[in-house]
Amino acid sequence: MFPSEVYIQRRKRLRELVGKGVMLFLGNKEVAMNYAANNYPFRQDSTFLYYFGLDMPGLAGMIDCEMGSETIYGSDPSLEDIIWVGNQEPLQEKAAKVGITQVKPLERLDGDVFRVIAHNREVHYLPPYREQRRLQLAYYDNLKYEEVDRNASEAMIRAVATQRSLKDAFEVEEMENTMNEVTREAYSQAVKNIKPGAFEYQVAGALEGTVLSKNCRMAYPIICTVNGQTLHNHYYGNELKKGQLLLVDAGAESPGRYATDITRTYPVGGKFSNQQKEIYKLVLDAQQEAIQAIKPGRPYYEVHFLAATALSRGLKELGLMKGDAGDAVRHGAHALFFPHGIGHMMGLDVHDMEDIGEDYIGYDQEFRRSEQFGTAYLRLAKRLQEGYVVTVEPGIYFIEPLIDKWHSEGRYRDFIDYRVVNKYRGFGGIRIEDNILVTAKGYRIIGKGIAKEMDEVEKIVGK
Amino acid sequence: MFPSEVYIQRRKRLRELVGKGVMLFLGNKEVAMNYAANNYPFRQDSTFLYYFGLDMPGLAGMIDCEMGSETIYGSDPSLEDIIWVGNQEPLQEKAAKVGITQVKPLERLDGDVFRVIAHNREVHYLPPYREQRRLQLAYYDNLKYEEVDRNASEAMIRAVATQRSLKDAFEVEEMENTMNEVTREAYSQAVKNIKPGAFEYQVAGALEGTVLSKNCRMAYPIICTVNGQTLHNHYYGNELKKGQLLLVDAGAESPGRYATDITRTYPVGGKFSNQQKEIYKLVLDAQQEAIQAIKPGRPYYEVHFLAATALSRGLKELGLMKGDAGDAVRHGAHALFFPHGIGHMMGLDVHDMEDIGEDYIGYDQEFRRSEQFGTAYLRLAKRLQEGYVVTVEPGIYFIEPLIDKWHSEGRYRDFIDYRVVNKYRGFGGIRIEDNILVTAKGYRIIGKGIAKEMDEVEKIVGK
Repeated sequence: MFPSEVYIQRRKRLRELVGKGVMLFLGNKEVAMNYAANNYPFRQDSTFLYYFGLDMPGLAGMIDCEMGSETIYGSDPSLEDIIWVGNQEPLQEKAAKVGITQVKPLERLDGDVFRVIAHNREVHYLPPYREQRRLQLAYYDNLKYEEVDRNASEAMIRAVATQRSLKDAFEVEEMENTMNEVTREAYSQAVKNIKPGAFEYQVAGALEGTVLSKNCRMAYPIICTVNGQTLHNHYYGNELKKGQLLLVDAGAESPGRYATDITRTYPVGGKFSNQQKEIYKLVLDAQQEAIQAIKPGRPYYEVHFLAATALSRGLKELGLMKGDAGDAVRHGAHALFFPHGIGHMMGLDVHDMEDIGEDYIGYDQEFRRSEQFGTAYLRLAKRLQEGYVVTVEPGIYFIEPLIDKWHSEGRYRDFIDYRVVNKYRGFGGIRIEDNILVTAKGYRIIGKGIAKEMDEVEKIVGK
Repeated sequence: MFPSEVYIQRRKRLRELVGKGVMLFLGNKEVAMNYAANNYPFRQDSTFLYYFGLDMPGLAGMIDCEMGSETIYGSDPSLEDIIWVGNQEPLQEKAAKVGITQVKPLERLDGDVFRVIAHNREVHYLPPYREQRRLQLAYYDNLKYEEVDRNASEAMIRAVATQRSLKDAFEVEEMENTMNEVTREAYSQAVKNIKPGAFEYQVAGALEGTVLSKNCRMAYPIICTVNGQTLHNHYYGNELKKGQLLLVDAGAESPGRYATDITRTYPVGGKFSNQQKEIYKLVLDAQQEAIQAIKPGRPYYEVHFLAATALSRGLKELGLMKGDAGDAVRHGAHALFFPHGIGHMMGLDVHDMEDIGEDYIGYDQEFRRSEQFGTAYLRLAKRLQEGYVVTVEPGIYFIEPLIDKWHSEGRYRDFIDYRVVNKYRGFGGIRIEDNILVTAKGYRIIGKGIAKEMDEVEKIVGK
């Protein structure tokens, strides 16, 4: 938890930005795994954490923009409960630590919401991402379940996005510490397990075990796979074979629930082949070029375009692509190898604020989302500002179903030499990712760095 | 996954038991952690797994009791999806492995359910434990959200409970293997970390990391605490101090999603004090007495009573209790120290089938749930049958808010000597738990055993 003044100022600014009506913040509840009493690890709602700082289930918050009143709704355990859950700090004292004096029992929330509605005042809320919250909002708003999402408050979305996009020193320090003390150490433990004959789950287990041993959790499910070309891959059952690439995409969540998000690609057996070296160098160079391009005022779309062009230029040198690299990217040919965006905002969520609407976070009137395959997946295109934290994560993948499809359709024959591409079948994928803070003058990489130079990487794998 | 014949027979028997109408099985969906695309690890519904064996999100099953038809509803990834999730075995082939030939797209489920309803046939379903399923059932049944639970099918609940209570050889082998190869190893890694100056999360992290490294997950959130007297304790932030007791309650979930559930209590620093030894011996002796009492036909209530009486007798010898031990338990005085039940059924859920109604699982016409504090928490009271798998987990705890309450109310002064009890404040709690199969002639402990004798335990802690 940050000092109370941080939360007080955040809420004050939010009230000013939204201006009128009442803002409703529904904290998360527990979620049943396989029966009501066997829950997943509790994850508080990120926006609730940002404005109210309290990391426990069953809370709600209300802020009256005009009156300036701020209320937390929740309940203290009964004496009976205390027998099972132990002595707890009273909610009133917890609330005081985030600068809130008005605490009411959760049972009073419904009445208070209906009272606001009865006075014809607007109730602002953010789009829900769990059914239980959608249900509760439908009940308040007398809406059909399906209507809840489109009745979310655009004023509140825009205000929250404005504030949460700009990370303050406390937030950056929290990410930096977790990167250095947890994610970095988790990678160094994981890498020891990358050996021919080991299984993906042994590497992933060493990584997550290290994170848990430091009282953190993962910010998102680990990707740890010899099939790095399959982008959303949470299968860990493959045996590692000498000569394969192992792609690891993982990051610890800080105690205050800030994400870290790192990707590295390792050679099983400890030596990159020549073919792997060529592609690895391309990705690493493109990543460094993209990072160096980061500064306030630069559209992130440009950084994406720069990286995609650098990758295309390199692939042309290797004979996989042809023609002008910039033209290839403008037409979307690079997306055969690099079918995603260069990065996204990061903060309390690994894809920061994705729940409140990706287009509000990454796009604006100047930049509209592309409809082109590949670039359409770019989550952040608008101009960078000092205080943004972003990921930079170029990759090159050989996705066989995609190669087959494009080849059979004869797509981008002017830019892609499919005969050469076919020599890379079975290659897998390489991605290299770091987290970057946009500073007044340019950028700063978050954390002391996790080995990514080819010779460094070869030195540590399996040792 | 078990051989297809296992699932075919289970479904056939279920059809016979329920007799008429159509049974609807809604598999689990993904659950959002902090935004829609960042999910918790997927956990399939246990009853769906039991009858359909398919461990992936977005499936449903339907069984027509009279027609005998069996259908799985679900969808294969599109070519577009395959780019992201890789090549998948077609659902038709997966379904064939559990003996089902009729596969329909998920979009056809709603229409098929409404058709059954239109024919005035009963749609049987089990009580939901996640909001998303409750919503779906409300939609089908044209019910208010709150009415869904009480419209669940008692016939289906009873039939499922009958079948799932009796574990076959495949199920027992699955639990046994996971106990030996995963949970046992996880404990042995965890115990090495129990040292003064270490933190609870280091022990818990070593345990869970080991489980993950073996491609398993936890069956339930780990309890790992120096405050073992707080029964529902998932806080891991305390530093271990020499002389404290560390209570660890944890179990791996098998690849087929069967639970294991072990509790051990360790002396931080490697030596039990004399006071700790006396209580430990009491708990261990009571556990062994309870285990030895297990056989088909014996009510589990009797095993509970036996253990509670053994604990009370021992506490009397130590001066904490007085009067007749059996009388003390009949009146409920033991519950100051042992406020929960002796154990519960275990299978695909750690509290097996708790979602479909604990009283259906643990009670029957012969045994009704007690309303007495302590014994009211006994989850299983009815007569044991060959094939049941149960936990045996007596404990003694010194719960200060409970001691204060009872002492101030003057409760059970004939059975409890509060002056002596007060000398145990700060003691914490001791629980010892194993998993037991009820056999034709008696019982068998599942797994090769995890150290629990005092001298063994002292030997391994911190080494």
